[in-house]
Amino acid sequence: MCQLLGMNCNVPTDICFSFEGFSARGGKTDDHHDGWGIAFFEGLGCRIFLDAKSSVISPVADLVRRYPIHSTHVVAHIRKATQGEIALENCHPFQRELWGRYWVFAHNGNLIDFHTDGAGFYQAVGKTDSEKAFCLILETLRQHFPQGNPPLKELYAVLKEMTETLAQKGVFNYLLSNGEHFFAYCSTQLHYIVREAPFAAAHSIDQDLTVDFQALTTPSDRVAIIATTPLTDNEVWTQIQPGELLVFQDGLPLNFDLG
Amino acid sequence: MCQLLGMNCNVPTDICFSFEGFSARGGKTDDHHDGWGIAFFEGLGCRIFLDAKSSVISPVADLVRRYPIHSTHVVAHIRKATQGEIALENCHPFQRELWGRYWVFAHNGNLIDFHTDGAGFYQAVGKTDSEKAFCLILETLRQHFPQGNPPLKELYAVLKEMTETLAQKGVFNYLLSNGEHFFAYCSTQLHYIVREAPFAAAHSIDQDLTVDFQALTTPSDRVAIIATTPLTDNEVWTQIQPGELLVFQDGLPLNFDLG
Repeated sequence: MCQLLGMNCNVPTDICFSFEGFSARGGKTDDHHDGWGIAFFEGLGCRIFLDAKSSVISPVADLVRRYPIHSTHVVAHIRKATQGEIALENCHPFQRELWGRYWVFAHNGNLIDFHTDGAGFYQAVGKTDSEKAFCLILETLRQHFPQGNPPLKELYAVLKEMTETLAQKGVFNYLLSNGEHFFAYCSTQLHYIVREAPFAAAHSIDQDLTVDFQALTTPSDRVAIIATTPLTDNEVWTQIQPGELLVFQDGLPLNFDLG
Repeated sequence: MCQLLGMNCNVPTDICFSFEGFSARGGKTDDHHDGWGIAFFEGLGCRIFLDAKSSVISPVADLVRRYPIHSTHVVAHIRKATQGEIALENCHPFQRELWGRYWVFAHNGNLIDFHTDGAGFYQAVGKTDSEKAFCLILETLRQHFPQGNPPLKELYAVLKEMTETLAQKGVFNYLLSNGEHFFAYCSTQLHYIVREAPFAAAHSIDQDLTVDFQALTTPSDRVAIIATTPLTDNEVWTQIQPGELLVFQDGLPLNFDLG
């Protein structure tokens, strides 16, 4: 299994505080030490930092903890290998391009007896069930919407249906974003918190670290943090219900479930 | 215009020395300060470090200079914007997946009046002529070889023909790799050097920096460095001829031009 961390905001924000605690779970406060990765959307661009080393010792993770990259859509992952050896090609998030936008995907779980014929346009490079599932999702979206980028409501409906099919194969918590939309699906375990004015101080569960968000924000800022398990011990996190596919926008879940 | 740096070797090698001098051209010894990027293949995996900041001041470039990532296929680029604003989505190298492998591409030059209809499978995310050309190259390969990964000789022939068509539109020096093959095309300016035993010391043109490769290598190591202009002033670099498409393998140019 693995752990997920995501961020969606109404203004570009850095994720240093959350990533500091989260990355400690890559071998210090938890045992997800088989690689890690984080994707930052900046405008249409996207950059992914990856390492097959544990996030506790990775010099790249050290950079991400120290270098505040401002983004509205962030997807991160620390890995505990189930399918696929410890190797760069098996580190999440995975990235592909669809309809002239980058899409990134990270998965927590394990799909049993899940095989794809690999005949579609997108093919997995590594050996994980996760990357295969991502390729199948994009393939399905592409086939459903040959004209390209559909309205969110239509996109959501197809994604939801596809997700439910895949979730029957096992545990399938995931984060998916194209820099415009941010999807979070809970199969078994996923939490979120929305931080907005009045901002307060937050204390990390994983490190003895407190940050005073009031000193770092403006009153109109809004930030949603999504994580497998809560990252702070003095805030109230919301548990996403199993089977729920949330769409975050400007730091808020839209929560328009179409059934 | 921009500058290119590539490396192809028979054993995974770090590019710290070459990147140190090359990245100085991003605002210190030259004016290619509109972003930069570097792609490292590690097995099937690939990671790209990108920044829209100049490579002289980018904290990410600082990491790449200090952190020895060992790879057999590296493609790097420093940008001086011609088409497309200074933004992450316009930074090279670009990456796409084809036939279950990542492909990366970086371009030095400028294609005039170059438009694609964007109707193919691969679509550019940013606004550069370079990314559009890359998408068109992959599209062409995909259409020519619907069964997937062809023998190198057949791949080369199609790539060469496509390249010559694109090169008619302007300056089109490029580096292209999928982690298995490494292509370097010279439209106007591109050089390479092969380092092998007996190794000697090399002195950087851009920094007062000398490295003694003998102390860092084994006798069987072989490394090809490809760059827009030579990076050292005490070694003999070979100029690739305009119109020549080289394939590097295990640190050597195969140079099997099929006409």
